[in-house]
Amino acid sequence: MKTIVMKFGGTSVAGIQKLKNIVNIVSAEVKNHKVIVVLSAMAGETNKLQSYLDELGEQNSIESDLVLTSGEQVTIGLLSSLLKAQDIKSIPLLGWQIPIITDNNHEKAKILKIDKKRIEFYFENYDVIVLAGFQGINIEGNITSLGRGGSDTTAVAIASAIKAERCDIYTDVEGVYSTDPNIEKKAKKISKMSYEEMLEMASTGAKVLHTRSVELAMKNNLTLQVLSSLTKKTGTFIVDEKELIEKEIVSGVSYSDKEAKVTISGILDKPGISAQIFSLMTENNINVDMIVQNISQDGISANITFTINQKDYHLTKSVLEKSNNILNYKSLILDKNVAKISVIGMGMMSQSGVAEKMFKTLAKNAINILAISTSEIKISVLIDVKHTNIAVKSLHEVYNL
Amino acid sequence: MKTIVMKFGGTSVAGIQKLKNIVNIVSAEVKNHKVIVVLSAMAGETNKLQSYLDELGEQNSIESDLVLTSGEQVTIGLLSSLLKAQDIKSIPLLGWQIPIITDNNHEKAKILKIDKKRIEFYFENYDVIVLAGFQGINIEGNITSLGRGGSDTTAVAIASAIKAERCDIYTDVEGVYSTDPNIEKKAKKISKMSYEEMLEMASTGAKVLHTRSVELAMKNNLTLQVLSSLTKKTGTFIVDEKELIEKEIVSGVSYSDKEAKVTISGILDKPGISAQIFSLMTENNINVDMIVQNISQDGISANITFTINQKDYHLTKSVLEKSNNILNYKSLILDKNVAKISVIGMGMMSQSGVAEKMFKTLAKNAINILAISTSEIKISVLIDVKHTNIAVKSLHEVYNL
Repeated sequence: MKTIVMKFGGTSVAGIQKLKNIVNIVSAEVKNHKVIVVLSAMAGETNKLQSYLDELGEQNSIESDLVLTSGEQVTIGLLSSLLKAQDIKSIPLLGWQIPIITDNNHEKAKILKIDKKRIEFYFENYDVIVLAGFQGINIEGNITSLGRGGSDTTAVAIASAIKAERCDIYTDVEGVYSTDPNIEKKAKKISKMSYEEMLEMASTGAKVLHTRSVELAMKNNLTLQVLSSLTKKTGTFIVDEKELIEKEIVSGVSYSDKEAKVTISGILDKPGISAQIFSLMTENNINVDMIVQNISQDGISANITFTINQKDYHLTKSVLEKSNNILNYKSLILDKNVAKISVIGMGMMSQSGVAEKMFKTLAKNAINILAISTSEIKISVLIDVKHTNIAVKSLHEVYNL
Repeated sequence: MKTIVMKFGGTSVAGIQKLKNIVNIVSAEVKNHKVIVVLSAMAGETNKLQSYLDELGEQNSIESDLVLTSGEQVTIGLLSSLLKAQDIKSIPLLGWQIPIITDNNHEKAKILKIDKKRIEFYFENYDVIVLAGFQGINIEGNITSLGRGGSDTTAVAIASAIKAERCDIYTDVEGVYSTDPNIEKKAKKISKMSYEEMLEMASTGAKVLHTRSVELAMKNNLTLQVLSSLTKKTGTFIVDEKELIEKEIVSGVSYSDKEAKVTISGILDKPGISAQIFSLMTENNINVDMIVQNISQDGISANITFTINQKDYHLTKSVLEKSNNILNYKSLILDKNVAKISVIGMGMMSQSGVAEKMFKTLAKNAINILAISTSEIKISVLIDVKHTNIAVKSLHEVYNL
């Protein structure tokens, strides 16, 4: 019998009523599948546990992972109880009971190995395994957690390990949209897209799936479906590029207002200066995204502009201020009032003119482009955050989404 | 280096402030001991988890034990974090990480085996093990819980396994008292008592320790100390009888108002009739305590009176009512307005007159005795509940406690 994996996040498991909704969804699939249900902790619970740790300043340790992984233990017990009450043969399992072996990086552990035999063993006696998401165990026998989006990763990893037919990620939206429906009401649900498109969407602002789980699904060629736990309509399938018969030139427009722009002016334009700046960023674990370098008119000094994540704003500021004795810049400006707008599509690879259309559309709307970055299937531009809505709406329209 | 085990219950771990108090206690002991700290879940947390299970009617299962054992995971993580912050080398461990192997009886599992090697291994690198109480793992790899008073049992079992110097049970009272200080202000803390006395005290109403943990300590000849986590004064030591130099004739007076009296009147006094009644009780898991059987004046019919736990009141009533076609009694009376008063002391074994003094004292206070039961070191009487205070006070005085 084929196996299906389904994952439900913190808001879908917060309380007995919501868990009963999951029972309905599982009941429908269990007729012709073995099912693994991966659960997060109840949404409010995780916040409470995190607040204890914040009070103690405890993080990335055996201790913090023990505290953080206690919540899934409750939800899997309760869901399995509800399934049994419907005469569904179910067993709840924690990460270490499979085991899901990870490395030693507490709060951001990577999965190294999943023992498939144990799952097959349980499926001899049970039709549903209710598995705690987000957690694993390292070879020293300590509980680890997988970090943000960890339950998605658990679901994809276990589905890959047992070669599941499909991995369904249940959320509170009906799938992946051509853009954010909160900005553009005409946004439509994408029925099928490639891993690469989903990765670009996720890394440019769409919050549906964590990039890590998409990368893992791509590596294992596992079909993902993003769908709503409330409406039960078919969602968005994320598949190998080869399975897309007709590739959309642009399949979606995403945006992120979580960026900050850093401009360093009046530095001496000597070889290695930008390497020096970006080494500093790397040493301090600051991710740099778009980069623009201008040589000033005197031909001697240069300006460098790049974007960072807003959460690194203060760190970046202090690192660069402290380093002025080395860098010798004239001015340093950090600006949070920017947004990154991206258009994404597999068809871009074979089709020219996409960028041109983008720049023209923005120009027509008098939107200044502060920086540009591109990949084979994506073009991103940095603009003033006040133009976000009009940029998204006009691009969504011009590409006929 | 010698090892000491200390256990803290739900009210002693409810919140960061209370956990900080435990850090102080551990700091003092860690200078010249390896320490195992056994913790319960935060008091309010267990109630919340139990309420989920009650809502689902889930009990005695893999599921209920998963839910119920999630709370200790939080407290051990937080305490270990606080210990580390004081530069104490500490590691938090769950029951399965030792492992504490139990049988398969979910929510009332018995410990079968504790792996001492794993503890010794951890003590090579750590000075304190913070162990989750109440929980174990069965040989099928499922988490089990030990039932009421389970953390006391964990503490005593682990202390026995590693031959600890002592097992300290921290509570919110300063030790075991000669009687309940809420009734008799003159009640004094007992400095040393035998396992047998403690067992009789616990089973006759004193709520300080669970009988199961005392039995286990007695079996392993482990010194227990009951003491307060707030005042840090020396508490009550519970030791082998041989270590008591001077045995008190009566060391304590306990009482229980959780009893109910059952009187079955007008049954045919034929052989086997009481066996029939008590088989019925056993079949329904109803514990019977004191028993009095009277033959009525006609020499044919008899009355049987016995006591049960109040929690079994309704079950007992329905079982006996349904069985009247077999038992053929004339009347059935159940009465909750009774109390059991017990005097306990190792010296009783060698000293006569204890019972006589008890009965005389009660008679002088016009207190009617409804039933009597005795052991080598205990005499219990059943009286009307309204006489509880005067009975406890007058007995406490007459035995010079």
